[in-house]
Amino acid sequence: MTWQITADSIRDLARGAAVLGTGGGGDPYIGALLARQAIGDGAVEVVPLGELSDDACVVTAAMMGAPTVMVEKLPSLDEVVAPIRALEASLGRPVTHIACAEAGGVNSTIPVAAAAALGLPLVDGDGMGRAFPELQMVLPTLYGITASPLGIADEKGNTALLETVDNHWTERIARVAAVEMGCSVMISGFAMTGAQAREALVDGSLSLCVELGARIAEARARNADPVEAVVSRLGGRELFAGKVVDVARATTAGFARGSARIDGELGRIELSFQNEHLVARLDGRVLVTTPDLIIVLEHDTGEPITTEGLRYGQRVRVVAAPADERWHSPGGLRLAGPAYFGYDYATTRYDGTTRETA
Amino acid sequence: MTWQITADSIRDLARGAAVLGTGGGGDPYIGALLARQAIGDGAVEVVPLGELSDDACVVTAAMMGAPTVMVEKLPSLDEVVAPIRALEASLGRPVTHIACAEAGGVNSTIPVAAAAALGLPLVDGDGMGRAFPELQMVLPTLYGITASPLGIADEKGNTALLETVDNHWTERIARVAAVEMGCSVMISGFAMTGAQAREALVDGSLSLCVELGARIAEARARNADPVEAVVSRLGGRELFAGKVVDVARATTAGFARGSARIDGELGRIELSFQNEHLVARLDGRVLVTTPDLIIVLEHDTGEPITTEGLRYGQRVRVVAAPADERWHSPGGLRLAGPAYFGYDYATTRYDGTTRETA
Repeated sequence: MTWQITADSIRDLARGAAVLGTGGGGDPYIGALLARQAIGDGAVEVVPLGELSDDACVVTAAMMGAPTVMVEKLPSLDEVVAPIRALEASLGRPVTHIACAEAGGVNSTIPVAAAAALGLPLVDGDGMGRAFPELQMVLPTLYGITASPLGIADEKGNTALLETVDNHWTERIARVAAVEMGCSVMISGFAMTGAQAREALVDGSLSLCVELGARIAEARARNADPVEAVVSRLGGRELFAGKVVDVARATTAGFARGSARIDGELGRIELSFQNEHLVARLDGRVLVTTPDLIIVLEHDTGEPITTEGLRYGQRVRVVAAPADERWHSPGGLRLAGPAYFGYDYATTRYDGTTRETA
Repeated sequence: MTWQITADSIRDLARGAAVLGTGGGGDPYIGALLARQAIGDGAVEVVPLGELSDDACVVTAAMMGAPTVMVEKLPSLDEVVAPIRALEASLGRPVTHIACAEAGGVNSTIPVAAAAALGLPLVDGDGMGRAFPELQMVLPTLYGITASPLGIADEKGNTALLETVDNHWTERIARVAAVEMGCSVMISGFAMTGAQAREALVDGSLSLCVELGARIAEARARNADPVEAVVSRLGGRELFAGKVVDVARATTAGFARGSARIDGELGRIELSFQNEHLVARLDGRVLVTTPDLIIVLEHDTGEPITTEGLRYGQRVRVVAAPADERWHSPGGLRLAGPAYFGYDYATTRYDGTTRETA
């Protein structure tokens, strides 16, 4: 059933998206500001994947770049809309629905702003069911859906339209353009039909974000444990509780890369990230790797903490949760498994097992 | 009067273009190979600027990147045509004429190949009357003609279309894309009407290239001095004769940058280049700077030597010649004077004077 996002639901959406964003996707409150501004007193329709007509024209809208930079460079609505307009001109037909490329921070709220500004509905799904740092790391890539034509726009008024031979090349060219254009840009691509979107996107992830955000708030209100509310909803497990004792972070080649060390009763956990958390190790032993979700929540409030928000002294809890099962297929692991990011660990699931599916 | 370029005239064209290319513009023989292949037994029409109809649609076709790389990566005709097709689609009207962005090496022959492949005429002019390393350094920039929409294509089949806020931004974004796409790409842009082309381009430069190339060959044939033939035709002066004793060259940020030292009877001359020669100094004293032309010719044959072709032990002669007078206007000097390239020398003309025009 179609439902609505209003300015009031943005806070829950942003908080839930930051949970699934596994540290990446940018500061959710920045995207939330923009989405609230665009919605005003109105609302954005959210259409379940199952209700999309086969010939709908669905495109993604997202921020690309280093979230560390995004924090200091709030995009305007013009900038959010420009790449969609450029893509639409290239497609030669009207865009009917906006989709989230990922579930995560700003990239779950930017599409709301885009949809509101354009008067278009959103689809209740996204391309990952979590956040990943590179553009080609979406399930549509596994279904042969091309990222290009891809529209790119910066805050100065520059736009680019890419047509590439594969989605890795879209990432490569868009990434260097994004760095040159100021280290964060707005993009729109992955044009797909309604039929393709039903198959390739993660169903219901916008609903899940709003629900997760609401559960955290609700648990706090009744003095229950908000972290437990997240763990039970996602079917995950709590890995570790402790205090952040070290954060190393560099913004290089358009990414925020680094690691965080957290000391607790069980020992010392180290999280490695490239925008998103990719590997969690306890005293050197691998606990969980990408593609499963590694989520850092504030100890008492359950508030999600992004990788650029990690600070010395924070008391946090680390949660692992299962990714969409398609990420564990051979193609999914090639796109976003630990080997792609240069780690020679076996893929380790949220529950600590290393079985892989065919 | 309209004239024709055939496969037979390519050699003269390429040689003359390499003279005006002042060391840059890429290896002329690589572009010549491609142009000959495209022309076959046919011919390309060359239309004088004065005969262009006001509503003609003229676009430039060029290679962008480091000529050091271009030498090892011969473009295909598909790659040459692709950015023009992308630009045409964006303009929404047919391109009627191809123009050279610069007079220099490969960028005087690539447009011939493009015109032959598309069955279109060339205009007898170019955007600089010489070669310069950056995209915005063309006289059309002084007339408010925008580089974008700019089509970009690589040999893999990737294309990009840029729409930018000014020509410096076209350069910046296209440059990083070019580097990522393999350090040399084909581009097409600066769409202008026939009326604009008549005003903004350098008149007759293709004719001049063919004439210069023929004069060099002719002087050799009659045992005259080919270098003197170049000097007299361009109204320049010979600065120096000597032997190359040192060449420092690095391909960085999409350019071939470096310097060459030449020892002769007068002392030691040092040439500094960024794709093109920018400054000539004799024992530390500035002889000539950009925007005037600094040309290196092989001592006896008068064959032009590109910056990537400079080698220890070559016996060479260095010639200076006047640039199009518009390069000495305040706007021209802002675009391509010595200060732009980071030199704090006064603009020194081919004849050693430092007067500047308003």
